[in-house]
Amino acid sequence: MAVPPLLTDLYQLTMMKAYLDNGKTEEAAFELFVRELPENRNYLIFCGLEEVFQVIENLRFSESDIDYLYSLKLFPDRFLDFLKEFRFTGKVYSIRDGTPFFAQEPVLRVEAPIYQAQLLETALMNQVHISSLAATKAARIYTVARGRAIADFSLRRTHGSDAGLKVAKYSYVAGFNGTSNVLAGKLYGIPVIGTVAHSFIMSFESEGEAFRAYLRSYPDKAILLVDTYDTVEGVKRAIEAAKEMGVELKGVRLDSGNVVELSKLVREILNEAGFERAKIIVSGGLDEYRIDEILKAGAEVDAFGVGTKFGVSSDSPYIDFVYKLVEVGGKPVMKTSPGKKMYPGKKQVFRKKEGDVVGVWGEELPGRPLLELVMEGTERRTEVPPLKEIRDYCISQLENLPEEVRDIRRKAKYPVAFSRKLEELYRKILRKIEEEEGELS
Amino acid sequence: MAVPPLLTDLYQLTMMKAYLDNGKTEEAAFELFVRELPENRNYLIFCGLEEVFQVIENLRFSESDIDYLYSLKLFPDRFLDFLKEFRFTGKVYSIRDGTPFFAQEPVLRVEAPIYQAQLLETALMNQVHISSLAATKAARIYTVARGRAIADFSLRRTHGSDAGLKVAKYSYVAGFNGTSNVLAGKLYGIPVIGTVAHSFIMSFESEGEAFRAYLRSYPDKAILLVDTYDTVEGVKRAIEAAKEMGVELKGVRLDSGNVVELSKLVREILNEAGFERAKIIVSGGLDEYRIDEILKAGAEVDAFGVGTKFGVSSDSPYIDFVYKLVEVGGKPVMKTSPGKKMYPGKKQVFRKKEGDVVGVWGEELPGRPLLELVMEGTERRTEVPPLKEIRDYCISQLENLPEEVRDIRRKAKYPVAFSRKLEELYRKILRKIEEEEGELS
Repeated sequence: MAVPPLLTDLYQLTMMKAYLDNGKTEEAAFELFVRELPENRNYLIFCGLEEVFQVIENLRFSESDIDYLYSLKLFPDRFLDFLKEFRFTGKVYSIRDGTPFFAQEPVLRVEAPIYQAQLLETALMNQVHISSLAATKAARIYTVARGRAIADFSLRRTHGSDAGLKVAKYSYVAGFNGTSNVLAGKLYGIPVIGTVAHSFIMSFESEGEAFRAYLRSYPDKAILLVDTYDTVEGVKRAIEAAKEMGVELKGVRLDSGNVVELSKLVREILNEAGFERAKIIVSGGLDEYRIDEILKAGAEVDAFGVGTKFGVSSDSPYIDFVYKLVEVGGKPVMKTSPGKKMYPGKKQVFRKKEGDVVGVWGEELPGRPLLELVMEGTERRTEVPPLKEIRDYCISQLENLPEEVRDIRRKAKYPVAFSRKLEELYRKILRKIEEEEGELS
Repeated sequence: MAVPPLLTDLYQLTMMKAYLDNGKTEEAAFELFVRELPENRNYLIFCGLEEVFQVIENLRFSESDIDYLYSLKLFPDRFLDFLKEFRFTGKVYSIRDGTPFFAQEPVLRVEAPIYQAQLLETALMNQVHISSLAATKAARIYTVARGRAIADFSLRRTHGSDAGLKVAKYSYVAGFNGTSNVLAGKLYGIPVIGTVAHSFIMSFESEGEAFRAYLRSYPDKAILLVDTYDTVEGVKRAIEAAKEMGVELKGVRLDSGNVVELSKLVREILNEAGFERAKIIVSGGLDEYRIDEILKAGAEVDAFGVGTKFGVSSDSPYIDFVYKLVEVGGKPVMKTSPGKKMYPGKKQVFRKKEGDVVGVWGEELPGRPLLELVMEGTERRTEVPPLKEIRDYCISQLENLPEEVRDIRRKAKYPVAFSRKLEELYRKILRKIEEEEGELS
């Protein structure tokens, strides 16, 4: 889904005009980061680079866009003519999709004439936010699922179609095995997964008849939903139907009830009937907290289907990303607010085994530098790897995190330090701001 | 943004094949409703009818959709040929956009051959969910804003582009005055609103210079952000700049600090300088709870700009909509689960001054019937009114709600009764299910 250029805040366009009216075309740098991690998160996962590319590649105003802007009576012809020809000419730096990041670490930087870098803010944030939100929530689920398969079943409750696609895509990156979202399967090549719904079972005269009907359509491939009436009776009927028809039962799904006890019972019944290979899929109101509880209680689960609470990241439904001006006309800047610290200037993040160091851009520090040039003008300077590759990378990065940071319940701080040079720059700029404020008041 | 037909759960397609394989083409009815209201909601607002229409109108599988489905090795050619020609032939009933609704009240019903009605589930829910979620959150903000203007500034943090558009559209319906989302302005004709960002102010040598630059570009139209350095100094500089240039100051925006005290101070300063007409816009971390607090504390605010917490409905980020089979082959059905009541059969909701009565479809009861035929096949049987008209209707409905139901903090139950006929049907179906279960076990 292409992001149209008008998917932006009005003020990005009015400021653009004001920058140009006042001859402000100097280079600026904006960095995307979070000041603090959300309450329930020890780490975040960056995702959305492909979407960043597409935002910039699609930043071409159409005739009808221009006509609409004209109708607002805010923009003179001269500005609209300029917009018509507008193309991004700056540079974008980014960390890799699937990389964990922490407070005060830039994940993306745009360097461009200020009116251009400003213009990108809304769409970049809109796309990176949902991508990273979904990947982060999914990573938490992945880490507690202890190797069980996980499927995204959230499409009916994600916030619209774009969220549905990104949740499917970036949960796969963060370790999920597939999605029920067919369009995501088509667009991104993610495995698609499905079972059967209560309404299907209920539409037949009996549960057994419904099972036979589905097995007839999908012999050896059917995952039967067994909890429509009574789970234990349901699994027995599923076995009976499969035996009668001489087909394999790929699995059964439990969507309600005490799944810890039921799953153990169902496993026994399946095994006794010789269906050791049939999988048990559990769904219904799941998130990382519930999955962790279920598994700790010894449930017999092969796969989880996660929906609403996962798809809207219900315990933390947003990330406070900010896109802040850090340099203008070659000079580092920062915004000071009580209780809202940020570091000035262009930065780099160095990742070592022992933790991260955020330094001034250009500094050479030990560790792997995370930010790299990804785009110049509308030319990509890096390829977005296949999702499978990003997924392997993301999983390896998750597994490298200290155990206490991966914990879904307890707060733990990943070690992030700031280089001496960056701290000095911070103090220098702060002094300058205080002096100027002093003079003015 | 058209919803592509593959934006669905895989099982909708596999069930469709299984229905057809087993000759199940009988008429069925599915109703969309919530079993219970979310924890923090005394009412919900239905929105999304235009999107429902579009889902059904766009339900035509393309060649590339068919090719993708073929590649999954789940569907034989015969079924794919059938899909290629597929068009919806059923009926849709719906309540009006902007109507408040409550637990156990159907807001939408699809009557169609069961394989068709089933197929629509995911996309309808995906689209109605975010539309109603946004309208509901906005309605709560509207009711506490006590006549102050409200603008949607949430685009950068909504869950993707589709959510951004629906949040803008349906918050307008629920009483907002406009949005910063330019694309929503273009697509839906909603007023677009904007101020200026901190980065703009910071990019100039001084705040005063930034103000003059913006006033030069937008004389008489500028809303200046005055809290970049010091709010009181900021507003004085804004006045100074406007006076110096001989232009009007349309308003000032406060985005941080103690807005109750600051807004009073800013109002005084503006008035003393003869800028009585300049508006005070407050933004930054707002939702209905905070707006209510601010106004109760006597803040001087003309307009609010609401962002993240509103745009993701952070205190209640999802609605547990269900789309349940209520009739098949002319027979009313329901799914029984412990603690999860639902009523069987096709229903109508009658709204009277004293409360609602849910009855059996076809019953004649006092009050205004809420559900009406809106679509037959792919033909619309009603027109979606202009947004402005829906907005007037929604506001009038909100104002009709009892005060305690409109309260944003205390739980209050709107009176919803169930007709004797519906209760009898419920008991009859329940007995039947229990008898069958008894026979089977």
